[in-house]
Amino acid sequence: MNQFINAKETLVTEALNGLLETSNGALTRLDGYPHIKVICRTDWDKSKVALISGGGSGHEPAHAGFVGAGMLTAAVCGEIFASPSVDAVLAGILAVTGDAGCLLIVKNYTGDRLNFGLAAERARAFGVKVEMVVVDDDIALPHLPQPRGVAGTLFVHKITGALAEGGAGLDAVTKAAKKVIANISSIGTSLDTCTVPGSTKEDRIAPGMAELGLGIHGEAGVEQVVFEGATKAMDLVLEKLSPTLERGACVAILNNLGSTTPLEMSVLAHELATSEKAKNISHIVGPAPLMTSLDMHGFSLSVLPIDGSNAAHLEMAVDLPAWPGMNKLCLPPVHPLPDGLSPIKPIPSDNAVTRALMDKCCDILIAAETDLNELDAKSGDGDTGSTLTTAAVAMKLSLDKLPLADSTQLFRAVGDELSQTMGGSSGVILAIFFGAAGDACASGKPVVKALLAGLERISQVGGAKKGDRTMIDALEPALRALPEGLDVAAKNAREGAAGTARMGRAKVGRASYVPEGNLLGYNDPGAEAVARLFEGLAKLN
Amino acid sequence: MNQFINAKETLVTEALNGLLETSNGALTRLDGYPHIKVICRTDWDKSKVALISGGGSGHEPAHAGFVGAGMLTAAVCGEIFASPSVDAVLAGILAVTGDAGCLLIVKNYTGDRLNFGLAAERARAFGVKVEMVVVDDDIALPHLPQPRGVAGTLFVHKITGALAEGGAGLDAVTKAAKKVIANISSIGTSLDTCTVPGSTKEDRIAPGMAELGLGIHGEAGVEQVVFEGATKAMDLVLEKLSPTLERGACVAILNNLGSTTPLEMSVLAHELATSEKAKNISHIVGPAPLMTSLDMHGFSLSVLPIDGSNAAHLEMAVDLPAWPGMNKLCLPPVHPLPDGLSPIKPIPSDNAVTRALMDKCCDILIAAETDLNELDAKSGDGDTGSTLTTAAVAMKLSLDKLPLADSTQLFRAVGDELSQTMGGSSGVILAIFFGAAGDACASGKPVVKALLAGLERISQVGGAKKGDRTMIDALEPALRALPEGLDVAAKNAREGAAGTARMGRAKVGRASYVPEGNLLGYNDPGAEAVARLFEGLAKLN
Repeated sequence: MNQFINAKETLVTEALNGLLETSNGALTRLDGYPHIKVICRTDWDKSKVALISGGGSGHEPAHAGFVGAGMLTAAVCGEIFASPSVDAVLAGILAVTGDAGCLLIVKNYTGDRLNFGLAAERARAFGVKVEMVVVDDDIALPHLPQPRGVAGTLFVHKITGALAEGGAGLDAVTKAAKKVIANISSIGTSLDTCTVPGSTKEDRIAPGMAELGLGIHGEAGVEQVVFEGATKAMDLVLEKLSPTLERGACVAILNNLGSTTPLEMSVLAHELATSEKAKNISHIVGPAPLMTSLDMHGFSLSVLPIDGSNAAHLEMAVDLPAWPGMNKLCLPPVHPLPDGLSPIKPIPSDNAVTRALMDKCCDILIAAETDLNELDAKSGDGDTGSTLTTAAVAMKLSLDKLPLADSTQLFRAVGDELSQTMGGSSGVILAIFFGAAGDACASGKPVVKALLAGLERISQVGGAKKGDRTMIDALEPALRALPEGLDVAAKNAREGAAGTARMGRAKVGRASYVPEGNLLGYNDPGAEAVARLFEGLAKLN
Repeated sequence: MNQFINAKETLVTEALNGLLETSNGALTRLDGYPHIKVICRTDWDKSKVALISGGGSGHEPAHAGFVGAGMLTAAVCGEIFASPSVDAVLAGILAVTGDAGCLLIVKNYTGDRLNFGLAAERARAFGVKVEMVVVDDDIALPHLPQPRGVAGTLFVHKITGALAEGGAGLDAVTKAAKKVIANISSIGTSLDTCTVPGSTKEDRIAPGMAELGLGIHGEAGVEQVVFEGATKAMDLVLEKLSPTLERGACVAILNNLGSTTPLEMSVLAHELATSEKAKNISHIVGPAPLMTSLDMHGFSLSVLPIDGSNAAHLEMAVDLPAWPGMNKLCLPPVHPLPDGLSPIKPIPSDNAVTRALMDKCCDILIAAETDLNELDAKSGDGDTGSTLTTAAVAMKLSLDKLPLADSTQLFRAVGDELSQTMGGSSGVILAIFFGAAGDACASGKPVVKALLAGLERISQVGGAKKGDRTMIDALEPALRALPEGLDVAAKNAREGAAGTARMGRAKVGRASYVPEGNLLGYNDPGAEAVARLFEGLAKLN
């Protein structure tokens, strides 16, 4: 068993119970398990025409998921891909039908026709007004006088549901259903068959092939074609539907047959929205799983000419999560990109002290390249030293272009520079550090406080704090001590860096994947870089 | 390529276009394809706090599907499982943020944290008010200080969405988000990995095994366990979530990770609704695909203590098909079966003429057994004669129990009798025929008209009409001629039956699968039976 079920025998009743239990009390069932599986609205008062559909299970959300105000009154559910019994249908009819009568909406399969048909007959013997319509929308086999009923059935549910909810009589509802049925065309295509619970999956469709014109019970399609991507797949389907599409404005149901991902369904929707062959499709229901075939990796498209008589019924909102609503197909509106994506180039300015300080910082990091690479090799790919050196070399070359006389602008500019020259996570982290420090300067904070604000921000964004074996272990005590002078700061940075060698495990970043203990005795390369920086600056004094 | 896509490189933009094109104009995008993929509300006026989420794609409907009034303002989408760039996030922030500021809702992955974090920093440099929260709800790896962000993120979207829509300020929205995040726990389980477009599917989980505690990017789970069905799978997940569940009433998100069928998800919902371990789960969102992992065959469960401060926000309706709403978990109400499922036994009555007629009909059919079987062997399993004989023998034995003096009741009783003694499609069809004839009698029609009404009904229900090579080809002309006498009726029946031998192909039923031509020269067995019946009765005259 490779499915989240317990046993084939209890699958359908358990699934229906799950639906009932999560429907906010809107649904009830008849007390006929396991043979009679009928799901009904709890808010039903029998004053309106009842709409009853159903058939074999395995097509969820059809049909029980469409029971609710504005769609079905009841769904009669069989076992997987098997028609419900005459008794089950009769129970459904008798349970929900009042003086207004009921309409049975049946998909064109012999078992369903006969069982629903006989149940209707039995109900009529009790004086119940029953009409029955048979949906035969599948155009896959054009020579068959008995096309199958597939996802186009949802058009019938929705349109008759709106009519019945509005109080239309049985004759009017039946007439509308017949008119809809006469005008629906559907066809499906799939890249794989479905897994019937308890059976081995049929391996009918070779990789690279697609089946066109298949049914919703794993029946083989009309033809296998080479699969050449979403555009071509939609094109083939639209080609088959062209007789209906050529008649004028249409609404389409884009139905997920089971395990097609939302991404794929959206790509298919895009093909539909942009294909020349679909230019008459003005409205769409979905993409969504509406009439599935268990886990079939495929989709179906159903089309119906849309006109004044059905548009409002299709549009009427219903409070059913399974019904995605009908939307107008439209070309996506596009909004211009906002200004501000290219960082504003700062106006260069000079300050001899700042220039010398930055130059020295760069030199210190360049000198530490080999040592830092060696430390990084213990936990990463051994490039911390080289990454910092590359950035430092670039920074030295940029000094003339930097706003050295304005600390707010300078911090921001250094951040922007590092995010471009360093790359990777470290570049982003330092860019955030200097950017936040710049913001803090802008709001009037002195430099040391601004740098601490930067530290707080990278801790928040990156998720690392003191003790996690990162550069923060050196940077944080150094910055806090800076008001006491560079010597104390350097001493703290060194102690912090040395402390990282005693941490058996990193808590963030790539080093966190290194097994406990392997890092013992080695300083974190980021913390070491910070310590070297402060030590080097302290020596200048 | 075994997916409905065109190329890996264009997959995400095509899918986003599909979403835009089918969203009734409610969504727009920034003009930054292919690098900047930002989906925004079209009805946004920047007066409220903007909510921005996003991350790698492949988790649809998250996050773009949750952009709309009452949830997100914008979604910044990366490539499949890859974080969007800093520029993309910055573009999203600058495009939708007004004076009220914005909140970035980020799942806890390093790439997302850093790119959203730096974008936030850059936006702040423009004076934009930006806050950022990081969702870390995955409890799969309890020792990790940096849990992943998974489907529990939807709780944050929904609750902050309701708050922001209601006009709450940035501080209040951020505080609420942090409170929610601190209280969510999530865990997932799967029977298979996912198919990353353009990559070979990893074959990590052996048949019969399930992985527990996996991420939403195909990362391996914490452990593999023997899969023992839906009950046990849900139990394992609930066990892991027990520290949160023990705290009191909770709301759960039951999330489809991709290709789990609606049937399976409903079974899992039923397990959740009935498990002792889930007794504190009072509300549920789903089951539905909310935060998928491409086509992963698995589910995740996220739980959050529900209280006065978040219930209303979770309940607030939003017009987004991707959000299934929050429902109360409840035991399914059960409705008693209606009366009338057991056919009312008719009161026996006698009529010598009717008795003789029926007896004769039965004898005629019994005598034709071998011939009819032989004809049926040409197109079916050669049992038409035997089936009719079995029913005829039973009917003769039932004559004493039938209401022979009342044609309405008699027709109905014969229909009920045949549906039980004949079985199969033929039994149902004849039951419908006699049932409808009985209804017509009840409404005052004479016997011949009543029989024609029965004929019309089986034609409607079974889908066969004259010329389809069925018993109708003999029955219809015979019944129409009956007012002119049995001789004419018999002659018509015989001509009709003979006509079926000239039809190369049956149009309904099992015989329709017999190749064109193989039936030429053989009467349809049903039509032959009707001809024998009328001929036999005519001889009596």
